[in-house]
Amino acid sequence: MINPQSYKWFFETTTAVEGHMHAIVRTIASAQTKYQQMEILELAAYGKALVLDGRIQSSQHDEFIYHEGLVHPGLLAHPRPERAMVIGGGEGATLREILRHPSIRRALMVDIDQEVVEQCKRHLPEMHQGAFDDPRTEVLHDDARAFLEQTSERFDLIVVDLTEPLEEGPACLLFTKEFYTLIRDRLTPVGIMTMQAGMTKVGELDFFTSICRTVREVFPVVAPYQTYISCFAVPWGFLVASKGSDPRKQTAQEVDQLIASRIKGELGYWDSQTHAHAFSLPKHIRRALEKQDRVITDKHPLIVA
Amino acid sequence: MINPQSYKWFFETTTAVEGHMHAIVRTIASAQTKYQQMEILELAAYGKALVLDGRIQSSQHDEFIYHEGLVHPGLLAHPRPERAMVIGGGEGATLREILRHPSIRRALMVDIDQEVVEQCKRHLPEMHQGAFDDPRTEVLHDDARAFLEQTSERFDLIVVDLTEPLEEGPACLLFTKEFYTLIRDRLTPVGIMTMQAGMTKVGELDFFTSICRTVREVFPVVAPYQTYISCFAVPWGFLVASKGSDPRKQTAQEVDQLIASRIKGELGYWDSQTHAHAFSLPKHIRRALEKQDRVITDKHPLIVA
Amino acid sequence: MINPQSYKWFFETTTAVEGHMHAIVRTIASAQTKYQQMEILELAAYGKALVLDGRIQSSQHDEFIYHEGLVHPGLLAHPRPERAMVIGGGEGATLREILRHPSIRRALMVDIDQEVVEQCKRHLPEMHQGAFDDPRTEVLHDDARAFLEQTSERFDLIVVDLTEPLEEGPACLLFTKEFYTLIRDRLTPVGIMTMQAGMTKVGELDFFTSICRTVREVFPVVAPYQTYISCFAVPWGFLVASKGSDPRKQTAQEVDQLIASRIKGELGYWDSQTHAHAFSLPKHIRRALEKQDRVITDKHPLIVA
Amino acid sequence: MINPQSYKWFFETTTAVEGHMHAIVRTIASAQTKYQQMEILELAAYGKALVLDGRIQSSQHDEFIYHEGLVHPGLLAHPRPERAMVIGGGEGATLREILRHPSIRRALMVDIDQEVVEQCKRHLPEMHQGAFDDPRTEVLHDDARAFLEQTSERFDLIVVDLTEPLEEGPACLLFTKEFYTLIRDRLTPVGIMTMQAGMTKVGELDFFTSICRTVREVFPVVAPYQTYISCFAVPWGFLVASKGSDPRKQTAQEVDQLIASRIKGELGYWDSQTHAHAFSLPKHIRRALEKQDRVITDKHPLIVA
Repeated sequence: MINPQSYKWFFETTTAVEGHMHAIVRTIASAQTKYQQMEILELAAYGKALVLDGRIQSSQHDEFIYHEGLVHPGLLAHPRPERAMVIGGGEGATLREILRHPSIRRALMVDIDQEVVEQCKRHLPEMHQGAFDDPRTEVLHDDARAFLEQTSERFDLIVVDLTEPLEEGPACLLFTKEFYTLIRDRLTPVGIMTMQAGMTKVGELDFFTSICRTVREVFPVVAPYQTYISCFAVPWGFLVASKGSDPRKQTAQEVDQLIASRIKGELGYWDSQTHAHAFSLPKHIRRALEKQDRVITDKHPLIVA
Repeated sequence: MINPQSYKWFFETTTAVEGHMHAIVRTIASAQTKYQQMEILELAAYGKALVLDGRIQSSQHDEFIYHEGLVHPGLLAHPRPERAMVIGGGEGATLREILRHPSIRRALMVDIDQEVVEQCKRHLPEMHQGAFDDPRTEVLHDDARAFLEQTSERFDLIVVDLTEPLEEGPACLLFTKEFYTLIRDRLTPVGIMTMQAGMTKVGELDFFTSICRTVREVFPVVAPYQTYISCFAVPWGFLVASKGSDPRKQTAQEVDQLIASRIKGELGYWDSQTHAHAFSLPKHIRRALEKQDRVITDKHPLIVA
Repeated sequence: MINPQSYKWFFETTTAVEGHMHAIVRTIASAQTKYQQMEILELAAYGKALVLDGRIQSSQHDEFIYHEGLVHPGLLAHPRPERAMVIGGGEGATLREILRHPSIRRALMVDIDQEVVEQCKRHLPEMHQGAFDDPRTEVLHDDARAFLEQTSERFDLIVVDLTEPLEEGPACLLFTKEFYTLIRDRLTPVGIMTMQAGMTKVGELDFFTSICRTVREVFPVVAPYQTYISCFAVPWGFLVASKGSDPRKQTAQEVDQLIASRIKGELGYWDSQTHAHAFSLPKHIRRALEKQDRVITDKHPLIVA
Repeated sequence: MINPQSYKWFFETTTAVEGHMHAIVRTIASAQTKYQQMEILELAAYGKALVLDGRIQSSQHDEFIYHEGLVHPGLLAHPRPERAMVIGGGEGATLREILRHPSIRRALMVDIDQEVVEQCKRHLPEMHQGAFDDPRTEVLHDDARAFLEQTSERFDLIVVDLTEPLEEGPACLLFTKEFYTLIRDRLTPVGIMTMQAGMTKVGELDFFTSICRTVREVFPVVAPYQTYISCFAVPWGFLVASKGSDPRKQTAQEVDQLIASRIKGELGYWDSQTHAHAFSLPKHIRRALEKQDRVITDKHPLIVA
């Protein structure tokens, strides 16, 4: 089964009865931060990868899929985004994609875990590509919810790039109706929220569909979409939420023109066909979205078991 | 990481440096047939699963995605399919989906491995659902290439539902330009070939793109598409090949009308949005397809390492 | 690393940070009994194996080491054993070794789990070799502690062949000073207790040494010894306890003469040299025994984490 | 089964159908040297460990068992050892144990792999404890067989501390009758050879017994013995070979007096009881030794599959 040169393996749990194995080339960094267990590994199949609490966040070889998919559909649905905020986003690659839009004048990243960000700065230049040094960037190490509660700033885009909560605790409060309401209230009238929203594999759609259902309580437009991140070994859900504009109404031509006119450099993943692929959800996923009636609240938070 | 009640695990190799683990509930059947190692397992996450030479072929919980995706795009691209042939297709679920089209009058399955078919008949009624007993069905245990070479029959649809060759040998000759030429010559003028064509994950696109390139040597229309099969833990490629008709030219309305008018019962996976999802290949996959220039021939066959 | 023909594996936890993997040939039986999860597997390296709650109890290829080692040192230290009791002992191989002593007139086995015993009778004839049908054998499915409390019978040998408790519960009460006191009181004046006493690997000596310390509270003679059971992947501790006789005082000649004169058939494992090997504990284990001062009681039971 | 804090694992093959898993705390060093793949890992259960070609050579927590067991029985069987040679012995712990004998005036280590030795010097001070800096020590990076062929030096002790050959190649020639003959010819008349001789678990005794049989062709006295190295997860064989003296003839009192009078500091593993334990081989191993008739030669070398 296994390459005899590969003795060290990283195991990632999908669920209690399923998992994925990656041969490790080397461990670049490993630390228990104030908030989580962090590792930067070099994987034989995917190059460098950031792992938090045992879950791969992104890998060198396919992070372009994750980060282009997370950022551009939302930004392209906004008429002229200038002020963007990233909640989480440790590696700096979410920042990087935002900064490819020359209309952006300010990119604020609020990631509570300074140590993770420092290690990513140092060890993952392939991912951030200098985004932390862009004059438009500001990084705060603060609780995002507390920050949003007290700020008077308003944003054109807020990207929620957080890992799902694995146990009860403050992280749960970043996945509730109350939190999404707070985000909505910190957006400009045409502002957009975009987020990663958990796996979409058969039998494990509960997190994704509950998040979509919850955001629908707060935003009039919620456009769920899906990509496949190879190193996660599962398909992955995202959503764009807004007070009006809807990426699903953009024609293929519009998408390609927006990309050509508004994004610096060439994208590797996103274009009009990828857009059609991602926003056209297969029937069984749409069914699961329709059936879901759970709204996640501070009082009844959701935990990924 | 792992449920303490789960002691037995099935390991599936993705590549030499990556793999997927499934907790086993029980082993339903296990045999070394004349051609391959066969097992029918009950997996904790996916129910019953057919495993050939250590590779999951299909699982109870998501085989609807694989088999609807394999069969319907091709059949719906044909004006009035009556005679269908399946090459491989052990579980009988490919037959099952074909037989949902009332226009079908004959469904011939040629699977060389009688023992696998017998075990599937017995242990996987959830998959075949009686397809082997349909009066339109005929099953032959023969080498598909030899059969096609000598038959005078012509088919409206030929579905190639074979596992990729893992080592040199006769299985390799079912993935070559010569074999696809033979299939083409056994199709009616408006006949369609459809096939599963290997994984489409980042870094492992060689098999899929070479197959597509090879089929393009033989068929004027080749429409590659993609699904995600959860139990495989990778996205999966397919293609429809024809002498003229192209499913990518069907409108959403046409697809839904064809499904409503031509297929008995309700589908779980395929509809117009799934069609859009599947045939809209992400940019990086289209790039890889464009770059691929390898044509697989009997003399230079392709082996999945 | 792994034979490509081996897709199914059994994982056995040694500790939370160490484990052992066995390729599975087939699953012979699998059941959740009233008391535990039970499986009879055929392992590629060891033949048939009984697994309870995810722990291998014995395997066809090396159970002779475990069962000869468990039974004979104690029996050979008794002048003329006639009445023996086994507590636990599901496979029947402990009975089998006891019955090889023609002086034995009664062999009572008290194993609470009837279903395990029935499955072993049916699927593990290589282990019990007819011991359940010997006219001297009686099997009761009862709580051993309750049975001992009310019985008026006295035994020459009591063999404790139980798995270590993995969680709080009634099984804990079979590893306490009170329970060993009860056993002592059900032995004849020259009666012997013998038991398996957990792993003896470096860093994991706590269970073994605490058990030895506890039994020393109750019996004047406690002779700990050690074997290596290959399928457990760790060395394994046992002990003989008595009111006077001590196997460590037997000369090599005595041991061999006792075996020759008192045991039917030839042993595969135990003889005078094995006796010297087993009762000569390496220095670091003797040190750990000396340092241990924990006495396990009903009020403060020991759980193997 | 597994500590959720343990995501990285080291897999060690025992055979193609059995293996052992260790949670990795961190990777201290990792290199492909000219001769082998080398890693120094910190394992959760055993502390620092040296791994060559995927096989654990020794670990911080139980290397005292391996190295005391490898060195002292041989040295204590010699009347007054002054000149010792180590073949292999990368970590320096074999040197360390030799140097504890004040009679030793010269300790020559010939290990072909300079890079492994350098990394051990740097990262494993717990193992070598300064042995490389002892004025009696000399280290050569040379092929041991070539060195022995041309040297005119004679030794009181030669310790063969080499990994078993996993494939055909020059390493095979260090496990043959011809090589042991060469060693014998480089020993003084009362000189001793001692070596590690592979695993002794049930079903895998071929290497150990063939080595013992082969050495018997060359040395009149061959005393095989056995320890249990926890981090290997198998019992392990060694042997002392000489032209006359035999450690098995030493009484317990002699062993303890020799240790007290000739070794500096206190041993953790070896003493008279450990000696009795180790040299008293269980019956099934003695049987396997008796039956083995294979003599390993340069022409017919042995490879551990």
